[in-house]
Amino acid sequence: MMKKVVVLGAGMMGSAITVPLADSGNYVNLWGTEYDVPILEYIKKTGTHSSLKVSLPKQVHVFYPEELDKALYGCEIVFIAVTSDAVKTILKRALPYMDDVRKVIILSKGIHVENDNIMSLSQVASEEIRNLGRDVNIISVGGPCIAEELVKKVPTLGVYASHSLSSALDCKKLFETKYYKIITTDDVIGVELCAALKNSYAITIGWSYGLSEIGDYKTVYNLESLLLTQAIKEMRVIVKSFGGNDETVIGPAGLGDLNVTIKKVEGRNVSFGRLLGKGMNFEEAIKYMHASGKTTIEGIPTAIKIYGFLTRSEYFSQVLDELILLKTLVDVLRGKISVKEALSEILENISERG
Amino acid sequence: MMKKVVVLGAGMMGSAITVPLADSGNYVNLWGTEYDVPILEYIKKTGTHSSLKVSLPKQVHVFYPEELDKALYGCEIVFIAVTSDAVKTILKRALPYMDDVRKVIILSKGIHVENDNIMSLSQVASEEIRNLGRDVNIISVGGPCIAEELVKKVPTLGVYASHSLSSALDCKKLFETKYYKIITTDDVIGVELCAALKNSYAITIGWSYGLSEIGDYKTVYNLESLLLTQAIKEMRVIVKSFGGNDETVIGPAGLGDLNVTIKKVEGRNVSFGRLLGKGMNFEEAIKYMHASGKTTIEGIPTAIKIYGFLTRSEYFSQVLDELILLKTLVDVLRGKISVKEALSEILENISERG
Repeated sequence: MMKKVVVLGAGMMGSAITVPLADSGNYVNLWGTEYDVPILEYIKKTGTHSSLKVSLPKQVHVFYPEELDKALYGCEIVFIAVTSDAVKTILKRALPYMDDVRKVIILSKGIHVENDNIMSLSQVASEEIRNLGRDVNIISVGGPCIAEELVKKVPTLGVYASHSLSSALDCKKLFETKYYKIITTDDVIGVELCAALKNSYAITIGWSYGLSEIGDYKTVYNLESLLLTQAIKEMRVIVKSFGGNDETVIGPAGLGDLNVTIKKVEGRNVSFGRLLGKGMNFEEAIKYMHASGKTTIEGIPTAIKIYGFLTRSEYFSQVLDELILLKTLVDVLRGKISVKEALSEILENISERG
Repeated sequence: MMKKVVVLGAGMMGSAITVPLADSGNYVNLWGTEYDVPILEYIKKTGTHSSLKVSLPKQVHVFYPEELDKALYGCEIVFIAVTSDAVKTILKRALPYMDDVRKVIILSKGIHVENDNIMSLSQVASEEIRNLGRDVNIISVGGPCIAEELVKKVPTLGVYASHSLSSALDCKKLFETKYYKIITTDDVIGVELCAALKNSYAITIGWSYGLSEIGDYKTVYNLESLLLTQAIKEMRVIVKSFGGNDETVIGPAGLGDLNVTIKKVEGRNVSFGRLLGKGMNFEEAIKYMHASGKTTIEGIPTAIKIYGFLTRSEYFSQVLDELILLKTLVDVLRGKISVKEALSEILENISERG
């Protein structure tokens, strides 16, 4: 049942997924954007991915930005692994060469914002693909997956979500290996919201990391655990409001993904949250992140956009009271309150409601 | 609303709780068992707790084992903070002096086993207290709380569970401080089961810590997150089977407590699990733990007793299929399979069910 598969985006996750794709016996193309050229050249020269620091499987064929047509030629399945803000552009570029494509699988995580409108990435893909005038199934991937671990074949679970459950099941049959397992769901909005929201909530958990570094606390796991359970509670409220499924949040795509995100302490969102927790204000923390080359912190726009959306909507505004972490996060990001004040507010709120 | 409160057991948690109890304006006695004598002497001499390495509040009065009558004199509220296997004995000893007691609050976590019968600690207390022939409310405490952090006033949440919700609410009014917040519930069995089960599941998460130390994996957070979400899933199944509430498991008493338990990497249960994950068999790991003075690993008997109970019961046996972590944990503890085999079995099971 070997398929010809192309991965668009040669960053960490796009490159990492080629390992199970090749191990499950598929023919794999890896195409990189203009930003990926140094990575592509390094792979061509050494066989090794410069950030992942491992050799990619020999069955993986690497393509330069200008070779998008060749990369897509004869491929039935496309993985999209570019940053969330680039999904639309890349799909537009790829469409002319997608004659053979039957499935588009979105590895990118995040939400798409146009004007004040929030769209999930599968909605973005669906709008673009409509132009093909053919039946193409869209599948969104969630779950706890650090790229560096996947390439080392650490046991990993992918959650494949599609309105066409059978096409998610096809993926399971095609791509599972001994170390890469796939579970399927039709809760597309739940999986996509979790993948985006976990970044915002990781910032608030990062606050506790910062706090543990000042004063004589040493560790503040009591606080971290309090924030973690509150984050899951709020993600459930939001996902349910959007029609998603509670179980998705409690499972690998929600709790699982949030857990890997906070465990990877050098990750952008927790790092940024830690700086705030140490006492920096928003501008100082952003400046510090930029200085270390980290310009995008996805949890920031996600929090602001989703909170704004909920605030404006009459239908959703009733759930706002239950979202004390999200509310105080947005207040901190806007410079209205300090993390210390946010934590007092959170504690009071949890105590009052409990 | 100051009360006279006594804490029975001067270990880490019993001593730590005196800090918020005193800060909330109560008169606090701390009584130690025969095992606690060195701790008590050290406090008497220096004011400091030898394991917690902090001074206890001046309002805390320390009592030796033979002063149980004096320690209990005039107290309306008793906290039980001895190890779970000692709860029954200590209550029997205290009963003659409990004339003024109106509330018994159980900080100890675990299950009590007599013959093949499983009892929660509040059930044990309830049986003993029946002999008093008076109305005494029993409250079980759960939630994420590392003693060393509580004494440093890290923001901490206690979950107070009682069939008499109003008496749990009394505790909230009496003991809350700025850093110690209390939420209440009537899901006693849910809170108590979570407090016991989290130790067993922490062992399985410890497997992943061991695995990360061998081979060239470095980190295995993908696997850890997979195990964490599966642990929560199984705890929900067990708690629901016993009539407890799903929300308890997803909240601070379940997920929260499991998270602090696995975060405290020097904890007994995760340490033991890590040794198994590194490739030691059961006997080797036990020997190693004993050599470092850690003779009790509560998650072991809890897993074996609960699994045995579920297996014997016709009513419960239908849920066994959903408990792959618990099943493989018991198999590993009995020397039937290795952790490596357990992990393969877990992955296959999750993939088949998903």
